[in-house]
Amino acid sequence: MAAEPVWSVDPRTGKPREQVAVEATAEDVDRSVRAAHEVRESLADRTVRAAFLRTAADLLDGAHEQIVATADAETALGPVRLTGELARTTAQLRAFAEVVEAGSFLDIRIDLPDPGATPPRPDMRRWKIPLGVVAVYAASNFPLAFSVPGGDTASALAAGCPVVIKAHPDHPATSELCAGLLRGAAAKAGLPEDVVVLVHGFDAGVKLVRHPLVAAAGFTGSVRGGRALFDAAAARPAPIPFHGELGSLNPVVLTPAAVEERAEEIGAGLAGSMTLGAGQFCTKPGFVLAPSGEAGDRFLDALAAGVAATGPAVLLDHRMREAFVAGVAARAALAGVRAPVAPGAGDAHTVGAGVLVVDAARLTGSEGGSGDHHLLLEECFGPVTVVARYDSRAQVTEVLAGLPGNLTATLHIADAADDEDAAPFLAALTPLAGRVLVNGWPTGVAVAAAQHHGGPYPATTSTSTSVGATAIERWLRPVTYQSTPARLLPPELRDGNPLGLPRR
Amino acid sequence: MAAEPVWSVDPRTGKPREQVAVEATAEDVDRSVRAAHEVRESLADRTVRAAFLRTAADLLDGAHEQIVATADAETALGPVRLTGELARTTAQLRAFAEVVEAGSFLDIRIDLPDPGATPPRPDMRRWKIPLGVVAVYAASNFPLAFSVPGGDTASALAAGCPVVIKAHPDHPATSELCAGLLRGAAAKAGLPEDVVVLVHGFDAGVKLVRHPLVAAAGFTGSVRGGRALFDAAAARPAPIPFHGELGSLNPVVLTPAAVEERAEEIGAGLAGSMTLGAGQFCTKPGFVLAPSGEAGDRFLDALAAGVAATGPAVLLDHRMREAFVAGVAARAALAGVRAPVAPGAGDAHTVGAGVLVVDAARLTGSEGGSGDHHLLLEECFGPVTVVARYDSRAQVTEVLAGLPGNLTATLHIADAADDEDAAPFLAALTPLAGRVLVNGWPTGVAVAAAQHHGGPYPATTSTSTSVGATAIERWLRPVTYQSTPARLLPPELRDGNPLGLPRR
Repeated sequence: MAAEPVWSVDPRTGKPREQVAVEATAEDVDRSVRAAHEVRESLADRTVRAAFLRTAADLLDGAHEQIVATADAETALGPVRLTGELARTTAQLRAFAEVVEAGSFLDIRIDLPDPGATPPRPDMRRWKIPLGVVAVYAASNFPLAFSVPGGDTASALAAGCPVVIKAHPDHPATSELCAGLLRGAAAKAGLPEDVVVLVHGFDAGVKLVRHPLVAAAGFTGSVRGGRALFDAAAARPAPIPFHGELGSLNPVVLTPAAVEERAEEIGAGLAGSMTLGAGQFCTKPGFVLAPSGEAGDRFLDALAAGVAATGPAVLLDHRMREAFVAGVAARAALAGVRAPVAPGAGDAHTVGAGVLVVDAARLTGSEGGSGDHHLLLEECFGPVTVVARYDSRAQVTEVLAGLPGNLTATLHIADAADDEDAAPFLAALTPLAGRVLVNGWPTGVAVAAAQHHGGPYPATTSTSTSVGATAIERWLRPVTYQSTPARLLPPELRDGNPLGLPRR
Repeated sequence: MAAEPVWSVDPRTGKPREQVAVEATAEDVDRSVRAAHEVRESLADRTVRAAFLRTAADLLDGAHEQIVATADAETALGPVRLTGELARTTAQLRAFAEVVEAGSFLDIRIDLPDPGATPPRPDMRRWKIPLGVVAVYAASNFPLAFSVPGGDTASALAAGCPVVIKAHPDHPATSELCAGLLRGAAAKAGLPEDVVVLVHGFDAGVKLVRHPLVAAAGFTGSVRGGRALFDAAAARPAPIPFHGELGSLNPVVLTPAAVEERAEEIGAGLAGSMTLGAGQFCTKPGFVLAPSGEAGDRFLDALAAGVAATGPAVLLDHRMREAFVAGVAARAALAGVRAPVAPGAGDAHTVGAGVLVVDAARLTGSEGGSGDHHLLLEECFGPVTVVARYDSRAQVTEVLAGLPGNLTATLHIADAADDEDAAPFLAALTPLAGRVLVNGWPTGVAVAAAQHHGGPYPATTSTSTSVGATAIERWLRPVTYQSTPARLLPPELRDGNPLGLPRR
């Protein structure tokens, strides 16, 4: 059987650009995983790992023009956005180099012996070791920061785990280019190139998560695809951790006092956030609870004006375009749904952004919980948001109680200290999300120690984060050495702390 | 339909002692989970939580005689062991009270704003919040320390999560007694009693893990039962973390130099460890790689003498006794397996401890990997261990490479610093286990900061520990507050650190 070709496609025209690779067969996947597994010990030295991550960042920065041009041709995200995304990606690689050197992720804990304890306590020294080969499933919407050279790859390599990356079919040329640079950086740092391996193809992705030598997986994508892989990871003879980011509605609540104070500013800000990157951010605010009444009307007018002013957008691929057009049509057809700016098809290759409005009363009781209107509480990927107009605080908390898990939840309140809705709404939003924002917008995820990019299912399939320094924790497991002579201990655990690492 | 009675049974006679409760129906489980969920906010105050845990320890200590007598009547573990186990259990509750007060488990990370970063960094404050109601599945073999008042319950309550505990059918009276004391302690600490709820019955356990308001589960038990519940947790519409400890062979490797130096001491030590608690410890050393030759023979003689000297043992229930008798018979019937002390049935209610011996060559290649002899590499619950005699270092590493994951792995080496087998064997054992011991025995798990009681599947279904301070991490998830005014932040995250908590 001939190998299936992998084409790079221009979403602006729907036309193939070039054949980039072929899909990996079962044998290819097996060979890739074994190759990565064979070289895992080469990543044991933390100094080399840090140098590798920095070299990778340098090589990616050095190929800046080619990467941005290639990614733009495949994703239509534009050079400004892609330039920023590449800067973020290389900054992330360098940040993980610092994490590797600082060593606090090793979480070293040392208990000296205490023969008098119940039961007696021997000498115990705990640290964390890499799990093994990590399967990385690249996302479509960030062809750099959540793809081949992105956070899952950077954090897994930082942890000491080789990666086998399943490329996203929306940007195979960018994937090949970046994987080549990562492998080149490995060689330059004195490591085997196979610490990073790239495979293409849907079937390859399924085989990857089932491979006995794959020890963990990271995924960013849709609920449908992510859940299928999560299920496969859980059904293995020996299940593995599956850290998936699957989907998020990212609810926003506006208090009456907030729209009284700055309806126009909030409307304009929301229009910018929900159309950023053609509404293809995982943190796009997709559902807004806004008060009924005059100030709420002004907010809606400002939102509609901002959205109407955005031009037609090219989505990442034609399948997504079709899903968006069908998704907004199904929502707009629901009883009581109005469209001050109708979202939907533009020309043959574009879509228009839009806003859908409904009374919050449609989303409570059986209509919101199990009826057709529940569709309005599900993510619709692309430039659309749903505004639900509410009449009471109780209505807000009732609607929020019916929402699935989210990456983010946003609250807009009046600057005055006496906004009495602020505390109850914040309390209702906190159980829904991994990041709770006040008077801001959720798009734009800072890479920082206190960042948390994750949330209750389906936002993520675990309690971990895929952005920020703690993302490294996903690829490690603790091991305790008990009563082990110093000569057999790794230097990190020896008396006198020869490497000067943080310990407890 | 009449409710199914739950009987307390005396394993020394197989006779029912008394009816203790009835099995929970689907409605009972639903009511129990809702009751626990309703009162979850009552656990928000860390000071109250710590007082509750200490009060629980005091009440359990105060009922010492009744608890030990009840547990002994149901488990036949004997008053000495149960007195020690109760001390360990109450020490663990008090240790978690200290963990709650110290607050480092909140893992607070604060990033002050940096508008110049790419992307700009807002004010972000991260901590960890409780997941919600935790389902606890009690173990048979530790009716206190891994049952109703055990580590899963203590760590979940410490995290701020109410618990619904599924009692183990081997000690329902002990479970009722301890649950009553825990609920009494809650009331004494000013908390609703429903922060701890007990249910009985196999079906109740399955319904519990599927309940939409159950947010996580902790389990200690068999691979079969644990895997079924793990699968149910993963198959939920919204999957939940399932922290299960399922089974462990706990391999031991003796170097030639170690047996040259102290064959008799090692043999006697192993006999004590593998028969402790009638071989019903999850850390029982169940598989030993010992060198062939004269010194290895002396080790085996000492082991056999020690095991032969132990009297008949009553296992936790008659089902386990039957499984043990069948399990050792199946192993003894394999080609090339010898039994210097034959394990098996004693009188109608007891078993005799034993040792099985095989050449390591039987465990390599297809025989060990997929043939009948693979059975020797599976846990057999009860007082038996399998000794494999090896001829070469390569044989040891080949056998180890075929082992499943374990809680512990033990290495015995010569005290002299030049035992050249030590380093390669330690390197081969580390990937297999969560705790690696040198010149000790794995039974007896110290409660300490550096403890890790977990390991690759099937030892545990996650990378977490069920013993030690970090066990609390299983029941928490991070939340980051972004740009949130101080008045809306929990005091733990406010400027100036008013509660004096550890922060990064």
